[in-house]
Amino acid sequence: MTHPHCHAGDPVATLDTPALVVDLDALERNIATLAAFARERKLRLRPHAKMHKSAAVARLQLQAGAVGLCVQKTSEAEALAAAGIDDLYISNEVIDPAKLARVAALARRVKLAIAVDSLLGVQRLAAALRAAGSTVDVFVEIDVGQGRCGVAPEQAGALAAALRAAGLRFAGLQAYQGKAQHLRSPAERTAAIEQAAAAVRTALASLERLGLSCPLVTGAGTGSFVHEAASGLWGELQCGSYAFMDRDYADNERDADAPRFEQALFIKSQVISRGAEHAVLDAGHKSHAIDSGLPRVWRHEWSVQNGGDEHCILRGAGLPPLGETVWLVPGHCDPTVNLHAQLVAVRGGLERGVVEAVWPVDARGCVS
Amino acid sequence: MTHPHCHAGDPVATLDTPALVVDLDALERNIATLAAFARERKLRLRPHAKMHKSAAVARLQLQAGAVGLCVQKTSEAEALAAAGIDDLYISNEVIDPAKLARVAALARRVKLAIAVDSLLGVQRLAAALRAAGSTVDVFVEIDVGQGRCGVAPEQAGALAAALRAAGLRFAGLQAYQGKAQHLRSPAERTAAIEQAAAAVRTALASLERLGLSCPLVTGAGTGSFVHEAASGLWGELQCGSYAFMDRDYADNERDADAPRFEQALFIKSQVISRGAEHAVLDAGHKSHAIDSGLPRVWRHEWSVQNGGDEHCILRGAGLPPLGETVWLVPGHCDPTVNLHAQLVAVRGGLERGVVEAVWPVDARGCVS
Repeated sequence: MTHPHCHAGDPVATLDTPALVVDLDALERNIATLAAFARERKLRLRPHAKMHKSAAVARLQLQAGAVGLCVQKTSEAEALAAAGIDDLYISNEVIDPAKLARVAALARRVKLAIAVDSLLGVQRLAAALRAAGSTVDVFVEIDVGQGRCGVAPEQAGALAAALRAAGLRFAGLQAYQGKAQHLRSPAERTAAIEQAAAAVRTALASLERLGLSCPLVTGAGTGSFVHEAASGLWGELQCGSYAFMDRDYADNERDADAPRFEQALFIKSQVISRGAEHAVLDAGHKSHAIDSGLPRVWRHEWSVQNGGDEHCILRGAGLPPLGETVWLVPGHCDPTVNLHAQLVAVRGGLERGVVEAVWPVDARGCVS
Repeated sequence: MTHPHCHAGDPVATLDTPALVVDLDALERNIATLAAFARERKLRLRPHAKMHKSAAVARLQLQAGAVGLCVQKTSEAEALAAAGIDDLYISNEVIDPAKLARVAALARRVKLAIAVDSLLGVQRLAAALRAAGSTVDVFVEIDVGQGRCGVAPEQAGALAAALRAAGLRFAGLQAYQGKAQHLRSPAERTAAIEQAAAAVRTALASLERLGLSCPLVTGAGTGSFVHEAASGLWGELQCGSYAFMDRDYADNERDADAPRFEQALFIKSQVISRGAEHAVLDAGHKSHAIDSGLPRVWRHEWSVQNGGDEHCILRGAGLPPLGETVWLVPGHCDPTVNLHAQLVAVRGGLERGVVEAVWPVDARGCVS
């Protein structure tokens, strides 16, 4: 059962709440803006589908020139492949043999790539592909400053040599600095990506020492991609959030030369209880993820207080009355989308718009 | 598509990760423990299904003597009714006429109750029920200290009189102090529920002044219910988390006389990347909600660091190697369950157990 029930042609005003709504006009402009940026710089664009988990949005990105999509999980790749997306990169490590068998099986049906950061990962991937008779592009992930996955940059050459020796296809370097995305000032982000670029250069030197060339460096996110693009090192951008945006990205100070993305993702909510000095909405953190902070009210200055799983509490002057619609900008788009079964795509604005499409969140809950 | 793929009879050891796992032995003991507590005190027990969202767990609770289930949302009630649960209480406000029409329609199929805290809510509910020719039990919600929904206690009588005048059936008072649940010390929780009890007495007096009797006071949660039970005021307990438990409840200092509940909910995860001083798991906050803090590792002292949507980072002595299984205790059970399509119910313990059932999370994502 999916909620809310709605159909193309319904006025937004009648849409049940809470609902996850995409402003189609803003979404299309965001997709076109980043596509133009990449095209002008002759960079490949492979947007991250961990954000929208939706084949419908992926198709809009592919139509605008994206070379394929990134995902983080094998089950995400399976879900998007089942929905018709046929060029996918699992930009993350898989170490379980049973899951690697699924990766190898999927590689028989779609063009697939994956990241590795360990010799065990290489050996198991090679065994799974041999058993299935399939091939994938393999990127060596290097740690460019995040301190999470990835080998030390100076070890990239040795791992690339090992994967080639195991019969795998070395496709390049996975170099993503997740922690740089929400550093608030351009100066901080510049410094973080300079450090990441130094790590990439170290990794490239370690490849050269072994006589290996690097077909591609892939990475970058919505907060930092202008810096990766300017470095001349990255050949592919993996931005995800740019398509929908969120409160956390809006809180970044923009780089002077960065393209501007518009807020395209909203929670439609409603006032269900009123006190003298507060209003209670019917949307809590089962409707919008709060890992990156609370949502913001769109076009109003009311403060938002955490009201638990199912409520938000608003305070401030001129609070809305019982039954009033309130539009929220989620704190973090990726895990917010993952909470919902569907994206309601709206044309003509939030107030007077009309539902143009209802898109399933094809890979919702695909964490495995 | 649901993940992970598994079937009854599978060894837990082969279960794909991340997976939401319920220890059936612990779950059954938790359900029996609270049922006995309520039975001995002649209190009604109406567990909150906002936590598990699962008809299978609801049936276990009903078999143990629960009178019915609570839910927070109309769509949750619809989903559980569709899965065969036929006595449901929406312990929350609904103000939208279209949604109230669904409430009224559902009341023709199951025994239904709902909360109100406004005259507008009363008028619209009455109109919807008249149109559908159905009836529901109506509870007046009072604010017992949480500062969210609910009328001031002294206004309970007037709202009860208004709802009776509108032809609705007054069923009693909704009196839940959500903020008391995670006050860490018994003394703080005692004080909070003493304040809530004073609010209930004020509300009862306001009813008496208008010649109205109160059929039932309903409320209480896993952190505070011993105090509501001891007060002699509440006749029905709404605990939800007791069945699964979580890290946040485990962090409470127990009341001396409180029943003990066991941790029954886990995320099975796996090490997918290793550094010299950290291990990276394949489960992040798309697998476990972090609104109430990070998960804890079960039976190990490793510290857990937020690794983003799809990863956790472990630090400490004797870190697990690549591929090792790690069991996480989620910070907050309710929104964690809501992230998953299914609960994998395991018999015989986490290490050597076997999958006994795979339960759908029937009301996953039902926020409307």
